[in-house]
Amino acid sequence: MKNEWTQAWLAYEKREEKGNGAYFASVAVNGFDTENVVVQSALKELKKGIKGMLDAEPMMADKATFVMKKDFALNAEGYTLTETDGVLTLAAGGENGLLYGVFEVLRRIAMEKSLQGVSVNAAPDCPLRMLNHWDNMDNSIERGYSGESFFFEDNEVVVNDRTVDYARLAASVGINGVVINNVNVKQAASYLITDRYYAKVAEMAKVFADYGIKFFMSLNYASTIEIGGMNSADPLDPEVISWWEKKIAECYANIPNLGGFLVKADSEGRPGPFTYGRTQADGANMLADIIKPYGGIIIWRCFVYNCQQDWRDYKTDRARAGYDNFIEMDGDYHENVILQIKNGPMDFQIREPISPLLGGLKKTNQMLEVQVAQEYTGHQIDVCYLMPMFKEVLDFKTYCSEKNDCVKDIISGKTLGNTNTGIAAVINTGNDKNWTGNDLAAANFYGFGRLGFDTELSSEEIAEEWIRLTFGNDPQVIEKVMGILLPSRATYEKYTSPLGIGWMVTPHVHYGCSVDGYEYSRWGTYHRADHLGIGVDRSHNGTGYALQYHEPNASMYDSMETCPEELLLFFHHVPYTYVLKSGKTLIQHIYDTHFEGVEEVEKMIAAWESLKEKIAPEVYDNVSERFGRQLTNAREWRDQVNSYFYRKSGIPDEKGRQIW
Amino acid sequence: MKNEWTQAWLAYEKREEKGNGAYFASVAVNGFDTENVVVQSALKELKKGIKGMLDAEPMMADKATFVMKKDFALNAEGYTLTETDGVLTLAAGGENGLLYGVFEVLRRIAMEKSLQGVSVNAAPDCPLRMLNHWDNMDNSIERGYSGESFFFEDNEVVVNDRTVDYARLAASVGINGVVINNVNVKQAASYLITDRYYAKVAEMAKVFADYGIKFFMSLNYASTIEIGGMNSADPLDPEVISWWEKKIAECYANIPNLGGFLVKADSEGRPGPFTYGRTQADGANMLADIIKPYGGIIIWRCFVYNCQQDWRDYKTDRARAGYDNFIEMDGDYHENVILQIKNGPMDFQIREPISPLLGGLKKTNQMLEVQVAQEYTGHQIDVCYLMPMFKEVLDFKTYCSEKNDCVKDIISGKTLGNTNTGIAAVINTGNDKNWTGNDLAAANFYGFGRLGFDTELSSEEIAEEWIRLTFGNDPQVIEKVMGILLPSRATYEKYTSPLGIGWMVTPHVHYGCSVDGYEYSRWGTYHRADHLGIGVDRSHNGTGYALQYHEPNASMYDSMETCPEELLLFFHHVPYTYVLKSGKTLIQHIYDTHFEGVEEVEKMIAAWESLKEKIAPEVYDNVSERFGRQLTNAREWRDQVNSYFYRKSGIPDEKGRQIW
Repeated sequence: MKNEWTQAWLAYEKREEKGNGAYFASVAVNGFDTENVVVQSALKELKKGIKGMLDAEPMMADKATFVMKKDFALNAEGYTLTETDGVLTLAAGGENGLLYGVFEVLRRIAMEKSLQGVSVNAAPDCPLRMLNHWDNMDNSIERGYSGESFFFEDNEVVVNDRTVDYARLAASVGINGVVINNVNVKQAASYLITDRYYAKVAEMAKVFADYGIKFFMSLNYASTIEIGGMNSADPLDPEVISWWEKKIAECYANIPNLGGFLVKADSEGRPGPFTYGRTQADGANMLADIIKPYGGIIIWRCFVYNCQQDWRDYKTDRARAGYDNFIEMDGDYHENVILQIKNGPMDFQIREPISPLLGGLKKTNQMLEVQVAQEYTGHQIDVCYLMPMFKEVLDFKTYCSEKNDCVKDIISGKTLGNTNTGIAAVINTGNDKNWTGNDLAAANFYGFGRLGFDTELSSEEIAEEWIRLTFGNDPQVIEKVMGILLPSRATYEKYTSPLGIGWMVTPHVHYGCSVDGYEYSRWGTYHRADHLGIGVDRSHNGTGYALQYHEPNASMYDSMETCPEELLLFFHHVPYTYVLKSGKTLIQHIYDTHFEGVEEVEKMIAAWESLKEKIAPEVYDNVSERFGRQLTNAREWRDQVNSYFYRKSGIPDEKGRQIW
Repeated sequence: MKNEWTQAWLAYEKREEKGNGAYFASVAVNGFDTENVVVQSALKELKKGIKGMLDAEPMMADKATFVMKKDFALNAEGYTLTETDGVLTLAAGGENGLLYGVFEVLRRIAMEKSLQGVSVNAAPDCPLRMLNHWDNMDNSIERGYSGESFFFEDNEVVVNDRTVDYARLAASVGINGVVINNVNVKQAASYLITDRYYAKVAEMAKVFADYGIKFFMSLNYASTIEIGGMNSADPLDPEVISWWEKKIAECYANIPNLGGFLVKADSEGRPGPFTYGRTQADGANMLADIIKPYGGIIIWRCFVYNCQQDWRDYKTDRARAGYDNFIEMDGDYHENVILQIKNGPMDFQIREPISPLLGGLKKTNQMLEVQVAQEYTGHQIDVCYLMPMFKEVLDFKTYCSEKNDCVKDIISGKTLGNTNTGIAAVINTGNDKNWTGNDLAAANFYGFGRLGFDTELSSEEIAEEWIRLTFGNDPQVIEKVMGILLPSRATYEKYTSPLGIGWMVTPHVHYGCSVDGYEYSRWGTYHRADHLGIGVDRSHNGTGYALQYHEPNASMYDSMETCPEELLLFFHHVPYTYVLKSGKTLIQHIYDTHFEGVEEVEKMIAAWESLKEKIAPEVYDNVSERFGRQLTNAREWRDQVNSYFYRKSGIPDEKGRQIW
């Protein structure tokens, strides 16, 4: 366990006052129970922030310049912030709204924006805004690139000041739910729902409760067998049901702040209802019915596919699996079940189409799952600011209904009028001092939370907020770091796999290039490159995946001419000589983008180096060291991809650059 | 630690007498000290074998029908075996000769061959016949496929009845030296030459001494630093020399049967003299001079190459490295240093040319290193009888002198008239019940020893001996198992990488196909395939490796026309359309051999299955299970290699078979 950690974007360093100081001379709280734990957290945070940034001590007073009050007309997590005649008023529908409002006040101060005349009316777009941790109890983190777990150590649950700071960071960007353990629940983690761990788990849940965050755990679907000593996990077996009834009652008796459970079943070797000839709905509903009286929910992951595919099998298509496995039971899931759906049909590649399950399901609660942990996007070595990708997902028009048919509408509840919906991220934190490995990767943690709260924020707005909060308000720092973050996803895409084909990564590790690494494997992840072309035919002539979308998306993807080019190789097998809209052939596009990608990394590094005098040495060195590795990685990708396709196609680079 | 093990080819099961029984009614030993430990082992073995196979109890007598006697005219490890007028006489030059003679007697009885009129005059061809174990003290075996170590357990040295049986098996095939620990000496193994382990090590060495086997250890070249607490391992530093003088004196005081040390230096991350700007000879000679008064030798491995190569670098050639690193100091190595040279210039691939260092060195003691452990040849899952490969190596004509210029002459001492020469095998044993994982892999352990003793034995003779000793003398069993073993290396070669190019294996694991697995890596192991052809140009136009050989070999390899076709892609980059001597194009040869390889595995399996009633069930099942995996492996290789080259070349199979 490392014992040092930063405050990330909550460092509350000295700021220019900009006339804001006066509001915090006196503070009043009306209509809220000041003994409430969340209200107390809000007040504590306010004091800490004002002290740090403005060097002032807010005093409680009846007649105040900063008035916090309850407004029952507002959403329980919403708030308004207004300023009139020297009085700043934060009205909130509930404690979480109050806390989020305080964080907005502090954010504005940190950004050195005057509060005079401010008029904000805010409420979260997504009802559930969750972080999923893939932490294991042996300290490791599955797909973690920022050290080890700070939730677990040597099979014990750890609660300390870092837990509190983690909760503050999460709450500051609007997170209201956290799953603390890996979806692959094994070994000690199976026992989190037993007397062995209840006391510590409850202590941790209490820390989250203080910040308005519901506490969730990943569940071992086979708990009846693994910890119950039974022979079955059949969801229709009365003994299984009875065991869960007792177990969940026990959980709530011990952990009052429990929000529910996340379940990965029948996937990648995990047990599930399929084992007993039952449906996914049978499994999810059984648990949901039992947890319902406690107000709990069951979040059920849709990442179900055949991970034992034969690469010689051109008919089976992993991309189809989520839809094929879940679409038929649309409407069968009970009201407190949520299906959690990865943004793409494969697995968090740098470019994928949006999962057709999102909006394909029309009678089911849906939660979008994205990955902030950079499993396939650079391991927090390479800079890859993910908000542009997340925005594309949220803004994707599914045509599932006449209006409010974008992904953001589905997960906010607008489409179906439901409230058990939201967004979840596999998060990128670990016990590294700076939380996220690369300091710049904190922008993804920050941005995910902000975007879940307000899906209309732009990538630029979020980046600027994070930079100002983290590095201060020097215009040159803002400009240069914006210049690094904003194009970084496009850059990463350029030097890795082209036009949506994905994979081509070192197997298992998922960092670094291996063009054929997954080509002859069992994972359903193929590029099908030969000497004439590359890509997977997922049109009606191929696997038919394109037809899983509503029209006109289905037709758009189905045709090579109308398919968006960034996804061309995901949907079609395309000759190297095919001419893109740019006028370039496919092969020349591959060469050009790979040379460009490396050049862009070199420019990012130059931009970062120009800030050497303006960034704290520890942070500067941390990012510089990673940039060095990113450049090596980008060059390796460029050379391997270009050499691979040159050797295979025999078509030289028009510009005569070095290819091996 | 597993506690059960077989007797392998020393099971001494009941045999038909064939008139041999009478010789063993009375036994005499003349001229030998019957208290000598090796003589005692010989007598014990004789009793055990005669009891088991002929159900008789040899009695000691002055006038006997089996006379063992000393003959000072014979080689100390040689013997004669003659029968006249009902008296069998084994004359030996020394205790080891006596022991080997007894094993020959027992072998003949096991093979149900009459001893009447026998007339054998035997002496080992190779002075040193060694087994190298890559056992680690944490129980693991580097490149071990037969369970864990039976020498070490949890960082302790283990000596028990299995150690004795291991020594018997080794001695029975003429082994006279064993290195017990991995050449990569790390952690606890660095401390084998300290008080921490001396007592146990000496106990183990004593077991080997009983069977005429010298005891060796791999040495950590940086011992002065790692266990001596010094700052240097510079071989010319007087303090380093002084440390080693004390250390080696200490070793011999504790381990009288110590033969010397094996050293892997300056290789794959291991420390060595290069670190101090010294030569390999400086390092080896320093140790050799110190160990000389004790009669010890230093065996110095030549596996030195740059394992951080850039795949874009077409000039550096790993194949050149052994020669380039060692040839200049030919003659500088002291008399009790032996250079241990792998059979090929790369690393134990299924097909490589012979290392040009063998015979390239003209004034240096040389030891041939082969690998019986099937690292790249099927992991003791796939059957791969290696004697045909070893025979090719031994019979290779190096042209290093006018006569006696084959590899077998160099390592027997005939070429240079030296005695510190020999052959070593990285051996394939572990604590599996049957010692070698696949029961059939024991033929390689057996065969290696026999071939080191008598380099003129044929692969067929050795196979037949091993089968008769192991499975008995049923003609059908002999025929079918011969039919499996003898072509198995050619079969493995057919379904894996073609024509000497090597590699194409799953990185790190070295089992299973990955055509590009090592193509863009740092290991110097490339095939350079593009859409027109494949192979590495090592001619004078390329890396010049071919010119490291003596003429006429250099010219033969240098030209595509005269290069032996089984090595064509090792030496040349060849178009897929190039016509081989068979009249087939290169690409068609690749397709055909890969289809044939799988068909041959299917035939092997059918042959094995025909023996179901004649083989002990445990052995039958063991081999059958592995055959199942071999077939899967062979099919996967066939399909991946064929698909890879079809996709890359675009040239279809003439026979229209299924390629993906």
